[in-house]
Amino acid sequence: MSCVKDNELDRMRNEVLEITKEILRLVAKRQSLCAEIGKLKQAKGLSIEDPSAERILREAITKEALALGIEKDFAQRLTTQLIEECIKVQPKPPEKKVLTHRDIARMAEALERQGVRVIRMDVGEPDFRAPSVVVERAYQEMKAGRSRYTEPKGKQELRQAIADYVKMRFDADVKADQVIATMGGAFGVYLALASTVSPGDEVIVIDPSWPIYKSCVRYVGGRPIVLETRLEDGWEPNLDELNEKISAATKAIIMNYPSNPTGKALGKKTFKGIVEIAQDRKLTLISDEVYADYNFTGSEHNTVLNYPEVSYVLISSFSKSWGMTGFRVGFVISDLDRANKMAAIQSMLITCIPEFIQYAAIEALKCLDEAKKNSEVMRERAEAVCKALEPLPVSFYKPDGAMYVFPRIDVKGIDGSEFAVKLLENKNVSVAPGGAFGNYFNYFRMSLGQPKEVLVEGVKRIGEFLSTLS
Amino acid sequence: MSCVKDNELDRMRNEVLEITKEILRLVAKRQSLCAEIGKLKQAKGLSIEDPSAERILREAITKEALALGIEKDFAQRLTTQLIEECIKVQPKPPEKKVLTHRDIARMAEALERQGVRVIRMDVGEPDFRAPSVVVERAYQEMKAGRSRYTEPKGKQELRQAIADYVKMRFDADVKADQVIATMGGAFGVYLALASTVSPGDEVIVIDPSWPIYKSCVRYVGGRPIVLETRLEDGWEPNLDELNEKISAATKAIIMNYPSNPTGKALGKKTFKGIVEIAQDRKLTLISDEVYADYNFTGSEHNTVLNYPEVSYVLISSFSKSWGMTGFRVGFVISDLDRANKMAAIQSMLITCIPEFIQYAAIEALKCLDEAKKNSEVMRERAEAVCKALEPLPVSFYKPDGAMYVFPRIDVKGIDGSEFAVKLLENKNVSVAPGGAFGNYFNYFRMSLGQPKEVLVEGVKRIGEFLSTLS
Repeated sequence: MSCVKDNELDRMRNEVLEITKEILRLVAKRQSLCAEIGKLKQAKGLSIEDPSAERILREAITKEALALGIEKDFAQRLTTQLIEECIKVQPKPPEKKVLTHRDIARMAEALERQGVRVIRMDVGEPDFRAPSVVVERAYQEMKAGRSRYTEPKGKQELRQAIADYVKMRFDADVKADQVIATMGGAFGVYLALASTVSPGDEVIVIDPSWPIYKSCVRYVGGRPIVLETRLEDGWEPNLDELNEKISAATKAIIMNYPSNPTGKALGKKTFKGIVEIAQDRKLTLISDEVYADYNFTGSEHNTVLNYPEVSYVLISSFSKSWGMTGFRVGFVISDLDRANKMAAIQSMLITCIPEFIQYAAIEALKCLDEAKKNSEVMRERAEAVCKALEPLPVSFYKPDGAMYVFPRIDVKGIDGSEFAVKLLENKNVSVAPGGAFGNYFNYFRMSLGQPKEVLVEGVKRIGEFLSTLS
Repeated sequence: MSCVKDNELDRMRNEVLEITKEILRLVAKRQSLCAEIGKLKQAKGLSIEDPSAERILREAITKEALALGIEKDFAQRLTTQLIEECIKVQPKPPEKKVLTHRDIARMAEALERQGVRVIRMDVGEPDFRAPSVVVERAYQEMKAGRSRYTEPKGKQELRQAIADYVKMRFDADVKADQVIATMGGAFGVYLALASTVSPGDEVIVIDPSWPIYKSCVRYVGGRPIVLETRLEDGWEPNLDELNEKISAATKAIIMNYPSNPTGKALGKKTFKGIVEIAQDRKLTLISDEVYADYNFTGSEHNTVLNYPEVSYVLISSFSKSWGMTGFRVGFVISDLDRANKMAAIQSMLITCIPEFIQYAAIEALKCLDEAKKNSEVMRERAEAVCKALEPLPVSFYKPDGAMYVFPRIDVKGIDGSEFAVKLLENKNVSVAPGGAFGNYFNYFRMSLGQPKEVLVEGVKRIGEFLSTLS
């Protein structure tokens, strides 16, 4: 080891430091420029985030990275950091306070604690009980000591039972190794995103949508890009608009049909159209089908499982079909590579789901009649609620499935958050404000997790309240 | 809106793009310099990662950021990205294949499927059953329909029971709102790290350690900085070394006493010393105390709960004390702000833990005798195993607690992974290779989750196998 060489290393390290400082100086210059742009945008009433300007920047950076021999993904991650810091230094407009169904639920619970009887249509939780055979099975296994660690994906027996179930139910060919038993559908959404999205990536979310999709995309460092659908179009997504939303940074599309909150189910043509776009543009299609069993149309449920040619993650759950919300058990299915990636994350974060609950899930899969009965009850409720809504000053899509109705309030100047709060205060009826699901501030969501008579009484009170507004 | 102003916006945006490109060019230049440094280091036999050079760089960058008015944390995150890319372009030495306890467990299970009886000392799972009152309570609640969503932190009743428990057990003053019921201790580790670490931050991990700490730090974008402890020092962490490991980028220290895998418990002086360092350097102390109840020393367990003046997260679990691994229930305690942050993450990712399991946990907290009995059994096992190990060519620390013994193999040229595989093949005894826990390749971990006689027979076979090696 010569002294000369040591000096050489020091000299090179020093040069690295100087370059890093120079980068920092450019970053500072970039930021002060961004602050100026922010002021200019504010003066002009433009919004801070500007997806089209960002897209131009991103595409130029990809090109430059290629020319310089820098890894494209690294260049994009770096750009994301710069954009985020840039947004931070720009002046922000006052934020619109949007209440979610959870805020309303908390207010409803506070009223209930005071002894007030509230008609609860806020949270998306069916009132059905788990089948008694499911409860008994969980107990028997627990008593027999089946409360040990299992493999992270879940026991082979459960995964095979799920594979058999989707074969029988959807004629889908799936191997047990492609299946992971997850902590409910929510953790399935997280696993799908965490295994697909790197910081700076974009994910298309079809609005109105369950708020967790967007927050979870942000949580894993991605950016949700919203494709809005409209009541006037029967909540049908426009495939040309979808195509336009996709950029070089897009990695996935999340969709959820039958839809929370609209109750919309997709016809085969549109479903297939989205699959084809995902395939063409090399995106992963994340399909949350937790409401597959609540289908009122009589036609078959369209599932991503029937399109194994596209990169997909199916998300499902035992919560809704079998009234098992508090068991926290669901499943995801995908190609084997991604399943292994998701299993590694599940293994690190939660080890596995409780062993006896895995057996309870096996039992639930045998209770097909119970799921069918629950679906029929939901259909009757939707029917009754829609009929009761008919004379009210609201417009709505009659749900094809799921467990919600999502009416627009046709009274001028009404805000969904304010409406939900006042409705609760004046009529003791709790609904979810539309703004929680996207840019739908004059909408509200009614959850059908109560007996029909209760729901109809709720709608009656909503009608009374609306009549005081117009 | 004047045309001049529009042009102004375009001009500024263009300038931002040009600056970004210039940054990218400097990044490319930096990378090629790093590649050269890598070659030079390789030629000189130096390792690629160089914490001291990195520290000098980081400190210079913090200073420069301050001078430029750039947020310090952002500058550090950016530096981390640059360093990581720099490491990527440097030539790597061939990677040492390290097997973990899970690899060995899989091999053991494969043997078991062939009908071979394996003495299992690989996975850290006690063989105790959950108390029967716990099982019955879970069943009763399940039958009564308590399988619904709860608040994300867990039911008030459970959180109050945990607060009362730590008051009684450790004389710790904690409010129910500071407590979150989590999916086992593992999810607690994740919540602690996810709420503390931003990409590029450093976290001190005291080795040898449970491998999940390092992988989880990396998973949330941080860098684990290892403080090694040594058998020769009785696994006592050196506080001067700890101080030296802390840099401007350090956010937290993770510690786990009684320790998996060494069985070491800290005396009050060292424990307090670490608390003081964390407090001085404004770090969060993440203290995984899942083995608090397996304490063989007769002296009090030292808990971070008794030092509310430091920023902390306590991690605990029902898995070990009450043989409830497969219930997947644990808890974290921290200051209220951080608890709320962790609850928001838990809410998004898993909603809550199963409702009836929350009641089961309440019941477990009443079974103090059962936890004490289990601890006594572990103490006897540790005693017996140590006695049986005595005549073997191994050196080890006699555990103060936890459920492991971590011997060093005093036979030249032996590698822990190879040892574990051959021991399993030749003697049907499964242990965890030391390399999984850090730079301890000639060690192995024995888990005490089996009856004493079985463990002693295992040690006997280990002795036979070792005698064939020397």
